[in-house]
Amino acid sequence: MRAPSDHERRPLPQAFIDAMNARFGARFSLGEAVRAHHGHDESHFPDAAPDAVVFARGTDEVVFAVNTCRTHAVPIIPFGVGSSLEGHILAVRGGLTVDLSEMNQVLAIHAEDMDAVVQPGVTRKQLNNALHGSGLFFPIDPGADASLGGMASTRASGTNAVRYGTMRENVLALTAVLADGRVVRTGGRARKSSSGYDLTRLLVGSEGTLGIITELTVRLHPLPEAVSSAVCAFPDIVDAVNTVIQTIQLGVPVARIELLDALTVKAINRYSKTTLRESPMLFFEFHGSPASVEEQAQTVQEIAREHGGLDFEWASRPEDRTRLWAARHDVLFASLNLRPGSRGISTDVCVPISRLAECVDGVRGEIEASGLIAPIVGHVGDGNFHCVILVDPDDPAEIARAEDLNRRIVERALAMGGTCTGEHGIGIGKQAFLLREHGREAIDTMWLIKQALDPDNLMNPGKVLPPA
Amino acid sequence: MRAPSDHERRPLPQAFIDAMNARFGARFSLGEAVRAHHGHDESHFPDAAPDAVVFARGTDEVVFAVNTCRTHAVPIIPFGVGSSLEGHILAVRGGLTVDLSEMNQVLAIHAEDMDAVVQPGVTRKQLNNALHGSGLFFPIDPGADASLGGMASTRASGTNAVRYGTMRENVLALTAVLADGRVVRTGGRARKSSSGYDLTRLLVGSEGTLGIITELTVRLHPLPEAVSSAVCAFPDIVDAVNTVIQTIQLGVPVARIELLDALTVKAINRYSKTTLRESPMLFFEFHGSPASVEEQAQTVQEIAREHGGLDFEWASRPEDRTRLWAARHDVLFASLNLRPGSRGISTDVCVPISRLAECVDGVRGEIEASGLIAPIVGHVGDGNFHCVILVDPDDPAEIARAEDLNRRIVERALAMGGTCTGEHGIGIGKQAFLLREHGREAIDTMWLIKQALDPDNLMNPGKVLPPA
Repeated sequence: MRAPSDHERRPLPQAFIDAMNARFGARFSLGEAVRAHHGHDESHFPDAAPDAVVFARGTDEVVFAVNTCRTHAVPIIPFGVGSSLEGHILAVRGGLTVDLSEMNQVLAIHAEDMDAVVQPGVTRKQLNNALHGSGLFFPIDPGADASLGGMASTRASGTNAVRYGTMRENVLALTAVLADGRVVRTGGRARKSSSGYDLTRLLVGSEGTLGIITELTVRLHPLPEAVSSAVCAFPDIVDAVNTVIQTIQLGVPVARIELLDALTVKAINRYSKTTLRESPMLFFEFHGSPASVEEQAQTVQEIAREHGGLDFEWASRPEDRTRLWAARHDVLFASLNLRPGSRGISTDVCVPISRLAECVDGVRGEIEASGLIAPIVGHVGDGNFHCVILVDPDDPAEIARAEDLNRRIVERALAMGGTCTGEHGIGIGKQAFLLREHGREAIDTMWLIKQALDPDNLMNPGKVLPPA
Repeated sequence: MRAPSDHERRPLPQAFIDAMNARFGARFSLGEAVRAHHGHDESHFPDAAPDAVVFARGTDEVVFAVNTCRTHAVPIIPFGVGSSLEGHILAVRGGLTVDLSEMNQVLAIHAEDMDAVVQPGVTRKQLNNALHGSGLFFPIDPGADASLGGMASTRASGTNAVRYGTMRENVLALTAVLADGRVVRTGGRARKSSSGYDLTRLLVGSEGTLGIITELTVRLHPLPEAVSSAVCAFPDIVDAVNTVIQTIQLGVPVARIELLDALTVKAINRYSKTTLRESPMLFFEFHGSPASVEEQAQTVQEIAREHGGLDFEWASRPEDRTRLWAARHDVLFASLNLRPGSRGISTDVCVPISRLAECVDGVRGEIEASGLIAPIVGHVGDGNFHCVILVDPDDPAEIARAEDLNRRIVERALAMGGTCTGEHGIGIGKQAFLLREHGREAIDTMWLIKQALDPDNLMNPGKVLPPA
């Protein structure tokens, strides 16, 4: 197979700069501060600023930028809010960053069809604010207030994917600008279709390497009539995980099940001034009719009791729920606070649910052996969990140990039929794991698609695919 | 764009025949009866027999067949049970049919992870029989006892997709043989992943034009603790559809909602010796805990009453449910029986749920204006419905009128943001509609992918994609 063309970093051609200046004026920037802002995300990878940034305001402007980049062989990187965790937006080969944050209009809310049409810079919180009063919500919640374009690009999910699915299930259609400047619309608003190749799902998770998303149609869900939350502590993390496994296997339609290890709970108590028992813990949320919510919770309480669950604590009042989930949401900050000045490197494996207890238990051993501090927290209803490895950002040796720990965790998950990333994506951090997970034949097939759609390898080059 | 290479029908090269004979012996057939059996499906399109048929027994044998076809430029068509409805398996350019029905092993049932690994010739009923006693089931039910490989290839769904999704949501991973003979494995067994391009979803719905599926990992679901069914008659079909719309909008997790028009009910009464009121009718099925099922049913009953529903009739006993759903399952035969000797041409549009009443009402008018007999039946919870247009198979003029009616129905659905096919696929019947639905840019993008993966256009040529 032909190797993808490699773009050595070189200065932007003056003709490119002139063309962009003429079209975008002040919205095209070569300024150092703007470039620096677009050169880092929430990952631990070294900053890599683009050579220029453009703030696009519509699909036609993205088309112009893509065409101008193609003419001058300039790499092009889409940018939402910069909350990615695997270096997706780092301009590792220089080029132009297309900032989509000004494309932030909610274009339509079709409440009666439970879908919304949005521009890619709309964030999930913004969409949910726009849905206020409609009786509907957009469930995908990766923690950060990410842009929906970015969430689609990384196939994001989060705490309640166990009930509502991931971006894969919740994007109905996309508009995208491909490398040759064509604008494709990948689907309609029907709930299902057998009409041709699934371009929507091909673009979801492609991390800007196949095209730039300029519009999304997303599914909405009815706000549940009743919501209740509960927390339950366990003597051991394996007991907690076994409770999860049985809950899923019984088909209880829980909306969220989050696992926190004892260290995470300790971090929360310290950071959020809570008084939770500092042992492994599950956070549950139940959605449904009042009767259904009560029934689900009772079933789960029984399962938890069988597995040694302690202190099953209810939180049906909104303020109690808010307090609990706010604490859960702050886990990253709480964890970092365990070691002031540290940075978190988050692992992201996901395994078949039956292997989850064994996996978490093995990972706990790996962490202990590593001597690193790494609280465990997870969206365990899907088999997905994270270790937030706390490192000194100025200690390369420690970062190397953290990367080694991550590698061990990924290998353990892959050996169990799992994946190296449940929801963060590949970016620049996991390309070697992608190859191990899928094998050379599958990666070569991905390259065939990449080369067909982006023959000059200008769309977010250096991301997702390991060298061919 | 380069036009795809066209394969004029020509005799099989002797060297191809020799190679296939040497490898497969009696499982490679040039016999007329075997070829004829593989030259028709359940569509109304003219039979088109392949030049040869091979009965493959493993991925390695499919690889051999694909490689031999490539060497000799022979088209290759995968075949499950032949229940497709849009001519998918017709050998319109001759070539070799790969019959996968002997690859019918259930390779693994991972009850604790709720997935199963199967060969492509396993049918949905066979899988559900294999699951007996496991507490799990495979929900996708397109009516026919189709092969799972075929169902994945057409992105099939059916009566309970409203609750459990389609093949898109229920295939976790595939093994497929691509045109160059490579074997790709497209995913693992984790419930979610952000790991690379979604090759699984690209192959699901590609109708054998990108590769031949030789293994599937599918999701299973817990058997519901309680199941109940109900039927409700309505004075007018629009009242029935409005009941559906409100049920979906309220988020009631119904497992099935089937619409039958008065003519369909009449056909059922005549065929299945039932005594249903001959007016538009909804069939419901509710899955869940006993309390949840009762609550769902009561909610729906109230909604139905608001829309003039009559005779809300329960069927909680298994034998009553079986009778009802057996009648529903026999709708095609019952409909054909309305006009002995006729053949059914099934339309398959799917629209956003808010437009469903308007769409069904308009279609009813189109049917009346056409003078054709076409009972309406639908998986209306998804916005999907079919008209079974009864035609005299020996009357080309009538078939042309039926095709014209189908075209009008598709145009109506597309104008509402719907799709030309909710679940049957494109095959040879809907390529022009595919273009109208997605536009030239999207179709050209599909062609780029097709050409990248199958440069000689040998994988089920003439299907899905309209000429480039």
